Amino acid sequence: MQEDTIEKFMRLAIDLATNNVRNGGGPFGAVVVRNGQIVGTGVNRVTANCDPTAHAEILAIREAAHFLSTHVLTDCVLFTSCEPCPMCLAAIYWAHITTVYFGNSKAQAQHIGFDDSLIYQQLSYPIEKRAVAMHRVCETEALESFLLWSDTEDKTPY
Amino acid sequence: MQEDTIEKFMRLAIDLATNNVRNGGGPFGAVVVRNGQIVGTGVNRVTANCDPTAHAEILAIREAAHFLSTHVLTDCVLFTSCEPCPMCLAAIYWAHITTVYFGNSKAQAQHIGFDDSLIYQQLSYPIEKRAVAMHRVCETEALESFLLWSDTEDKTPY
Repeated sequence: MQEDTIEKFMRLAIDLATNNVRNGGGPFGAVVVRNGQIVGTGVNRVTANCDPTAHAEILAIREAAHFLSTHVLTDCVLFTSCEPCPMCLAAIYWAHITTVYFGNSKAQAQHIGFDDSLIYQQLSYPIEKRAVAMHRVCETEALESFLLWSDTEDKTPY
Repeated sequence: MQEDTIEKFMRLAIDLATNNVRNGGGPFGAVVVRNGQIVGTGVNRVTANCDPTAHAEILAIREAAHFLSTHVLTDCVLFTSCEPCPMCLAAIYWAHITTVYFGNSKAQAQHIGFDDSLIYQQLSYPIEKRAVAMHRVCETEALESFLLWSDTEDKTPY
């Protein structure tokens, strides 16, 4: 992608972020592009929509996938006004997006009160060391759905 | 929470997972509980809904937050039929859920074709070592939304 095209789409993600602050949301915007066309946009609506998962990148990915009628966005590029948090970065991998452009760094996000360093750290810990208490129960019963999945022939793996 | 109550809600998450396979979805179900009441449920609809973010835990958290009209689920407990992937685990932290019960392990999920170990690994890498290419652009312009956020007095931080 050419430099001026990259800057054009990043400028749009930044404008989405700025306008979202004026609209009661967090300072984050994202754009998904495929073959030079915008296929999804998103802004942070966590508090506005009462949805802890409503980060700009998540909403842009969801919109792009819906628009393109596929959960695989391999040929898409994500522009986000800020370096993705672990939730959004994992979503980028699940969506098979391979290129991301970002503006602000996570250190700058931390500086204005959005700190995801704890979450990045927690994800690298083994279960027993995490701040979230995680307990395994019903091991035998839980296998039921996995066995059914393995035995199902007309499934859609991903 | 008492053991039989824990098993009751986990059994429900497992049943959601099993029924979801019969309904063309992945073998994953989740339930969010607050004060002994179910406030959200979810099943994996990634391929069925063309949404790479539609994991059971994400949908259950979104439903609970919407139902309770808050993005903060501190007093909620999540039951999930399988150990959360990095996207869902990060969402659990953003939602401030502090207790999670799970059935199947991520090793078992990997065994039937759902492998998130690469994503856990990638998240721990610095940007330049990741499989996803991440480039920083428009550093100065991107600060615009952050400065506006810092200058806004009637904002809702989180």
